[in-house]
Amino acid sequence: MAGLSSLLTIHLTSSDSFVTRKESAVLSTTLAESEESLKAKANEPKRRVLFYAAGSGIPEVKTILSGFVIHGYLGGRTLFTKAVGLTLSVAAGLSLGKEGPFVHIASCIGNIVSRFFSKYETNEAKRREILSAASAAGVAVAFGAPIGGVLFSLEEVSYFFPAKTMWRSFFCAMVAAITLRFLDPFGSGKLVLFQVTYDKDWHAYELIPFLFLGVFGGVFGAYFSKLNYRWSRHVRNGTWIKTHPVIEVLLVTLVSSIFCFVNPYTRMGGTELVYNLFAECRPGSANTHSGLCVIDPSSQAIPVIRAIFVALLVKAGLTCITFGIKLPAGIFIPTLGVGACAGRILGILVQWWQYTHPTSPLFAACKGDLNCVVPGLYAMVGAAATLSGVTRTTVSLAVIMFELTDTLTYAVPVMLSVLVAKTVADALEPKGIYDLVIELAQLPYLDAKRDYVWGSHEINDVTDRDADAIRMENLNTVKSLRDQLFSLVHSGNGDSGFPLLREDNYGQRMVGYIGANELEHALSIVADDADEGVSFHATKPYTHGGAMSSSLSSLAAETGSVMNYDALDFSPYMDKAPLIVSSNSPLESVHQFFTKLGARYVVVVDGDGYYEGVIDKKHWLAFLNELEEEKKSS
Amino acid sequence: MAGLSSLLTIHLTSSDSFVTRKESAVLSTTLAESEESLKAKANEPKRRVLFYAAGSGIPEVKTILSGFVIHGYLGGRTLFTKAVGLTLSVAAGLSLGKEGPFVHIASCIGNIVSRFFSKYETNEAKRREILSAASAAGVAVAFGAPIGGVLFSLEEVSYFFPAKTMWRSFFCAMVAAITLRFLDPFGSGKLVLFQVTYDKDWHAYELIPFLFLGVFGGVFGAYFSKLNYRWSRHVRNGTWIKTHPVIEVLLVTLVSSIFCFVNPYTRMGGTELVYNLFAECRPGSANTHSGLCVIDPSSQAIPVIRAIFVALLVKAGLTCITFGIKLPAGIFIPTLGVGACAGRILGILVQWWQYTHPTSPLFAACKGDLNCVVPGLYAMVGAAATLSGVTRTTVSLAVIMFELTDTLTYAVPVMLSVLVAKTVADALEPKGIYDLVIELAQLPYLDAKRDYVWGSHEINDVTDRDADAIRMENLNTVKSLRDQLFSLVHSGNGDSGFPLLREDNYGQRMVGYIGANELEHALSIVADDADEGVSFHATKPYTHGGAMSSSLSSLAAETGSVMNYDALDFSPYMDKAPLIVSSNSPLESVHQFFTKLGARYVVVVDGDGYYEGVIDKKHWLAFLNELEEEKKSS
Repeated sequence: MAGLSSLLTIHLTSSDSFVTRKESAVLSTTLAESEESLKAKANEPKRRVLFYAAGSGIPEVKTILSGFVIHGYLGGRTLFTKAVGLTLSVAAGLSLGKEGPFVHIASCIGNIVSRFFSKYETNEAKRREILSAASAAGVAVAFGAPIGGVLFSLEEVSYFFPAKTMWRSFFCAMVAAITLRFLDPFGSGKLVLFQVTYDKDWHAYELIPFLFLGVFGGVFGAYFSKLNYRWSRHVRNGTWIKTHPVIEVLLVTLVSSIFCFVNPYTRMGGTELVYNLFAECRPGSANTHSGLCVIDPSSQAIPVIRAIFVALLVKAGLTCITFGIKLPAGIFIPTLGVGACAGRILGILVQWWQYTHPTSPLFAACKGDLNCVVPGLYAMVGAAATLSGVTRTTVSLAVIMFELTDTLTYAVPVMLSVLVAKTVADALEPKGIYDLVIELAQLPYLDAKRDYVWGSHEINDVTDRDADAIRMENLNTVKSLRDQLFSLVHSGNGDSGFPLLREDNYGQRMVGYIGANELEHALSIVADDADEGVSFHATKPYTHGGAMSSSLSSLAAETGSVMNYDALDFSPYMDKAPLIVSSNSPLESVHQFFTKLGARYVVVVDGDGYYEGVIDKKHWLAFLNELEEEKKSS
Repeated sequence: MAGLSSLLTIHLTSSDSFVTRKESAVLSTTLAESEESLKAKANEPKRRVLFYAAGSGIPEVKTILSGFVIHGYLGGRTLFTKAVGLTLSVAAGLSLGKEGPFVHIASCIGNIVSRFFSKYETNEAKRREILSAASAAGVAVAFGAPIGGVLFSLEEVSYFFPAKTMWRSFFCAMVAAITLRFLDPFGSGKLVLFQVTYDKDWHAYELIPFLFLGVFGGVFGAYFSKLNYRWSRHVRNGTWIKTHPVIEVLLVTLVSSIFCFVNPYTRMGGTELVYNLFAECRPGSANTHSGLCVIDPSSQAIPVIRAIFVALLVKAGLTCITFGIKLPAGIFIPTLGVGACAGRILGILVQWWQYTHPTSPLFAACKGDLNCVVPGLYAMVGAAATLSGVTRTTVSLAVIMFELTDTLTYAVPVMLSVLVAKTVADALEPKGIYDLVIELAQLPYLDAKRDYVWGSHEINDVTDRDADAIRMENLNTVKSLRDQLFSLVHSGNGDSGFPLLREDNYGQRMVGYIGANELEHALSIVADDADEGVSFHATKPYTHGGAMSSSLSSLAAETGSVMNYDALDFSPYMDKAPLIVSSNSPLESVHQFFTKLGARYVVVVDGDGYYEGVIDKKHWLAFLNELEEEKKSS
C-alpha cells in the first residue's frame, strides 16, 4: 500500500510538473531568443543564440568576471526566469541541482543592486568585485557553507581575487548565512544540509579504500565530463534536437520519470538520497535509512549493493543527458549522489569483509568491534572525490564538504580523496566540466590557470598588422570616423577599436588607442556635425583623476568626472598610454598582460619604437586555440 | 603543598632555561652577525644586522616570497638555530608561540630540499612555489589545521598564489597533517589542539556580545601592534638595549617569571591557558578547569573575573615586550590567550546576568535553563577576534579556529567577530603586526594589497634618468664593464643593473637590460681577458626555451640550457625585451607591473619610443614610502 501510494505520488508529481516544465522551458527559450542580440546591433549571418536562463550559469559568470560583457545576462528578466524555472525544474524531480543556478541568481541580484550606486555603475572593476562576492553568497546559501562559498568563488568562479575582495566576499557570505539561519527554510534551526552524527575516528588502513574512491572519482569525473561534452556536441547540437529544445526537455523528463521506478533510491530526490547515503546505521535503531543499513552482511549485503549500484548507473546516465538541456540546472547534487552511491557500495563491501574476517590484522584497530566500519563515511569521501573529479576544485570543495556535514573529524580522508580525484581527472581530461561548457558555448574565456607551450611562435605571428587605424595626418571628420567604425563593427570586431597613428620619418608612431565603444559614444554626441574635423590632442601627459582611458581601465582605480569642454576633441575618450610590448618580447609577457593585467589590447612596437600592429584579446584567444589544435594534432 | 611544588617547578623550569636561554640567544646573535653580509660583498658604512633566527620569521618569508633574496635566511644553520632556540624559548615559559617559527622552519626545510632538484634550484619562481607550500605545512602542523594552513599561506604569507600552487600546498599540508596524526605527539590520537566538547547552539541575542568582542579584538589588535612597534623602535632600538640583546632576553625572562607568580592563570603555559578558557563547565563535573567554572555567579563571579583580568593584563604586557626580542618567538598563542581571557570575562558576565535575570525577554531563547550561556564559546570568539585584530587575516583565521576547536557549529559568531575586529583594527592602524615588523626591519617589501593615491605625481617624477648605462657606441671591454659594475655595487645598488643603449638620430634607443648579477657572472667567465671587447648582439628575436633573460624571469616559465658559444658575447645574459612603459602612462600601470607581473625594473620611453630612464623596484619602493609620508603630513 505504502509502496503503491509513494509510486503514485511520484508519478503524479512528475506528470504534474511535466506541464509546468514545458511552460518554463518555453519561457526560457523565447526569452533568450528575444534577447539574442548578443554583441552587435547589425544583423549578421551566423549569430549564436544563448539561452540565458539555461544551464548552471557558472561558466557564463566566469566569463563575465574574466572581463567580457554579455548584455542582459545578469538582468532582471533572466533573474526572474531562472528563479521560476529553477523551482519548477527541481520540483519536476529531474536529476539536477540548484547550486549553479543559485550562483547565477545571486550574481543577477548583485548586478541589479549595483546599478543603483554610481560608484559601481560606472566602474566595471568594482562591479566585478560585487559579482565575486555575490557568487560566494550564492554557494553559501545553496549549501549553508559560507566559507566554502568564499573559497569556491576564489578557486573556480573569479578571475581576479585581490585580498580586499576576499574579505568582502566573506562578509557577504556571512550575512547570507545569518539570514538563511534566521529564515530557517528546512525547519531544523541549522545551516547544515547533511549533518552526520557519527563521530568514530577513521583508521589508518581505511586510507587504502579512500584512495580507491579518489581514483574512482577522478575517472568518473573525467569520463562524465567527456561524455556530457560529446552528448551535447553530437546528439544535442548535431541532430534535430537542436531546434526542438522543448521536446528534448519533455523526453528527458519522460525518461527520468520512467527510470525513477527502478528502485527506491532512484525514486528519492537528490538531496534525500545523499542524506540517507551519508547516514550512520546505529545498531538497535529502528531507522534503517530506507533499507540502506546492513545489519547482517552475509545475507543483506548483495541485494543492497545491487540496488545502490543500479541507482548509481541510473543517476549517472540521467545526469549526463540532463546537464546541458535548456533548463536551469546545476551539477553538484547529482554528482554528490553518484559519488555517495559508489562510496556506500565500497563501505558496505569493507564492512562485509570485516564481518567475515574480524580477526584479520588489517582490522586490528577495530579491536573486534563489528560496527567499526561506517559506510556513511565512505559515501561522504566518495561524494567529495566525484565532485572534485567533475569540477576540479580542491580546497573549496573540501571546506564545502565539512560545512555540509558539520564535521571536521574526517578532514584527512576527504582531502586525500579530493586530491587523488583531481590528479587522476586532470591526467585523463585537462578541462573540468565548466571549462568544457565554455568551450562548447564558444564563450571568449581566457584561462589564466593554464600553461601554454609557445614553441617557436613569435609575437610577429600574432600581431594584427592590417588593423584599421585612424591616421593623424588625414583629416578625420565625424563622417569618416563613422564609416570606419561601421566597417569595423560590420566585420564582427565591434568590441575592439582603432590605434591612432601618426607618420614619422621612417615609419608610424603610435599616439594612442580608442575603443569602438568609446568612439561610438563620442560620435553620438557630435552626430549632427558630419563634416566637422575631429581632433585627438594627446600632448598632455596622463593626469590622475581624469578620464579612465587606460587600457587597464577595466581593472584599475576609480573614474573621475570627464570635463569635456570641446565635443570635437576626442582625446578624453582615447587611451593615451596603451600597454606597449616590443616585438622581440616572449609571448609569455603578452599572455601575462592579458591574464594578470586584464588588458583588452596590446600595441606591438619594433626595436625603434615604431608601431607594428596590435593584438587584441579576441585575436589572442584565437591564437591560443590554434596552439591547442596544433598540440593535439602533433 | 601542591601549590608550593608547582611554584617550585615553575621557578626551577624558568631558571633552568634561564641558562639555556642565554646560550640560545648568544647562538643566534653570533650566527647572525657572522652572516651579516646581507646583500653585497663590499663593506659599506651602515650595514644592518638581521638576526636570522630571531622573531617570528613570517615577515621575512613574506619578503622573500615577494621576490627579494635574503642570503642564508633559509639555510641549514638558521634551521638548526631556530629549531633548538624555539624549543628552549617555549620551554622557558616566556609569553610566546611556536607557529611563526614553524612557518620559518618549514620554509628552511623546503628551501634545503629544493636544492637537490635542479628544476627548483635554477628557477626562483618554482622555488617560491615550494616555499608557499612549506608555509602552509608549517601552519598545518603548528595548529593541526591543514586547510587553515593553506589559506594562511594564501592570505598572509604568499605574494603570487596561482591555482596550481593552491592545490600543491593543499597536498603538502595534507601530508603534514597525516604525518602529525600518526606521530601523535600529544598522545590524544587527534590533530585538534583545543577540542571543545559543547554542542549547544548559540542564540540570536548573543550576536551583540560577540559584536563587542569583535570591537575589543580590533581595538586591542591595533593598539597592541602600535605599542609593540613603538616599544621596538624607541625602547629596544633606541636605548642601550640595542647593543645588548642577550641582557634584554635575560631581563624579559626575569620579568616573565616574576609575573608568573601573580595568579594560577598567568602561571599556566599559553596552550594550557587557552585550552582551559575554551572549556565548558559541565554541571556536576568534578573538573572545574582550574577554578574557571562559575557555579554560583553571585559569589564566585567577581574573584574569577578579577583573576582572569589580571591574567589578561599580564599576558598582554609580557607579549608586548616579548615579541621582537632576539629569540624565535611567535605571536599566535599569546594573542589567543589574551583574547580568550577577554571573551571568558564577558561570558561570565553574561552568565551572571542571566543568573540574576532568568526571566528577562533577552534570555527567552534559553527557556529558563541556567546553563544556557557557555563562557567557553565567548572565549573562543574573543580569541578569534583578537588574533584577527593583530594579524588582519580573515578567512584563514576563521578556518584555523574551526580546525583548532574541531567544531563548525559556531561558524557565524566566529566569522562575525573576525570581520568586525579586522574592520575596526584597519580603521585605527592600517598595518598589521607583520607589516609593522617589515617596516621596522626596513625589509624591501612591496605591498600588493594596498591602494595608493597617486595625486599629481607622474612617471617623470620617479624615472631615474641618470642611471648608469652601457652604451653600444662605446667600446665595452671586460675592464670597463667591471669598473662600471664596481661603481654600481659600491653605490649600494648591487641588485639593480644597466640599461643597454644605442645612439639614434634624435636620442637614445633602448637595446636591452642586463642585471648586475648576470653581468658579474658573465664577467667572471672572461675575467682573464681584461682588454677584450664585449658584444651584445641583440638582433635575433626572443626564442622560447632560450636563456631566461626576460624581466619576468623571476616569475615566468622554465629555463632552458644556455648555449654560450662565445664567452665574449654577453647577449645570453641580457634581457632583450624588458617591460616598456610610455612616460605618459598612469603610475598605476607601473605599480601593476611590479606587483602583478613581478617586474624588477621597468624601462620608460617617451612618445617617440626614445629611452628616458629606468625605474627599478628599489626606487619604486622609495617613491611609495615618500608618498606615504606626504599623505601622513598632509
